[in-house]
Amino acid sequence: MSEASKNVTASLIIIGNEILSGRTEDKNAPFLAKQLNEIGIGLREIRVVPDIEDEIVDALNACRARYDYVFTTGGIGPTHDDITSDSVAKAIGVKNVIHDEARAILGEHYGDQDLNEARMRMAHTPEGAVLVENPISKAPGYQIENVFVLAGVPIIMQAMFDSLRHRLVGGPPIRSHTIRAELPEGKVAKGLGRIQVTYPDVEIGSYPFFRMGIVGCSLVLRGTDEALLAAAVDAVRGLIRDLGAEPVDETEA
Amino acid sequence: MSEASKNVTASLIIIGNEILSGRTEDKNAPFLAKQLNEIGIGLREIRVVPDIEDEIVDALNACRARYDYVFTTGGIGPTHDDITSDSVAKAIGVKNVIHDEARAILGEHYGDQDLNEARMRMAHTPEGAVLVENPISKAPGYQIENVFVLAGVPIIMQAMFDSLRHRLVGGPPIRSHTIRAELPEGKVAKGLGRIQVTYPDVEIGSYPFFRMGIVGCSLVLRGTDEALLAAAVDAVRGLIRDLGAEPVDETEA
Repeated sequence: MSEASKNVTASLIIIGNEILSGRTEDKNAPFLAKQLNEIGIGLREIRVVPDIEDEIVDALNACRARYDYVFTTGGIGPTHDDITSDSVAKAIGVKNVIHDEARAILGEHYGDQDLNEARMRMAHTPEGAVLVENPISKAPGYQIENVFVLAGVPIIMQAMFDSLRHRLVGGPPIRSHTIRAELPEGKVAKGLGRIQVTYPDVEIGSYPFFRMGIVGCSLVLRGTDEALLAAAVDAVRGLIRDLGAEPVDETEA
Repeated sequence: MSEASKNVTASLIIIGNEILSGRTEDKNAPFLAKQLNEIGIGLREIRVVPDIEDEIVDALNACRARYDYVFTTGGIGPTHDDITSDSVAKAIGVKNVIHDEARAILGEHYGDQDLNEARMRMAHTPEGAVLVENPISKAPGYQIENVFVLAGVPIIMQAMFDSLRHRLVGGPPIRSHTIRAELPEGKVAKGLGRIQVTYPDVEIGSYPFFRMGIVGCSLVLRGTDEALLAAAVDAVRGLIRDLGAEPVDETEA
């Protein structure tokens, strides 16, 4: 993709044994992917790592050097398994310290006598962090350098993302167009490959489906240049008709 | 976790722009995690990477050196964006060649005249691969060294996993027990941390929930030693009662 170099990129690090054990299905990645698309930031990598400091540090250092933005979810609560802030501080090489503003927010929420030692973990951030508001349960997320540290609970993560969205600088929105055809991928493949060569700046993906005995494929075209995208979509529609089927617009965004 | 060293480990590499764009929600990771638990293999990392050869190669080489088993999903169809086999071959340092048995399976399924150039992509594997049967749509997955290459469509991926399961050598099954309490995490945290210190070989996670105005937490205990797990579960039940709430068994496996 020749335009990849000018795209703004992001990665997501999901910190959570509960995802790796299969207990919980992650809902944050699809949400984040779609939100970032809208503001012209491409999610380029997702990693799910366990609640182990070295693993989190390694993932953070690999991703923050490589992508414009890194988001983390999970591990910022009051229990012993909430080690995200310690890990982020270690990765960046600063101390994990009490953030006065976070402490004030928690003190107001819990009352000073219920702001116990465990809850004070949530008042700690790597030194220099800027808070991200949590309108749901108050304990804040934060940003340090290009890393945004968010909660794992989806409703809180989403509210935090709304709070921080204005800080992100993206490129042109990434548009997507999906065309469905009742044709097996194996018949579409050759022509589709040619269209990809003609439109290198449009990302073309093919996903097979099997529904009630019908074999077909969904062809997904993505790009930031609307005119190029429209031309590639027309070419795909033409290909499907040439193969004797009818292109169906599945979604438009 | 002192027992981590003797555990059998795995990672999953999800190859797919459709997951990174938010179009498709991955269903393979939760399935694989649960299946692996049952045969005593811990899923330790998940990476989602785009359909870009270098990215896939890097993820493969990082993971296959580190974990006992690596599973990949996606990118083994007939279209231009199906580059998994080329990438696996490159990572391992062998050629991506026609696999006679795979070609025979595809020839029988499609008929020789419909086994076109695009579909012949699905007859290629890295040299030395052993096929994994696909009872659904025939085009096989395969194993090479400790890497298992599977389809992305969940129903096919699951059938392939059933076909390969007997090749995996795990440890004792990883048991899990979840106890729910209508107590905020901040009140449970101190005692829970102490229980974790007492039972270092039991992995204890705390996950908050917010349901109809009730703040609570699900406490998940996992381990391979049933007696230790039972003792830790009893300790957690005792902690919850000491804090004035009633422990509720959420699941048992």
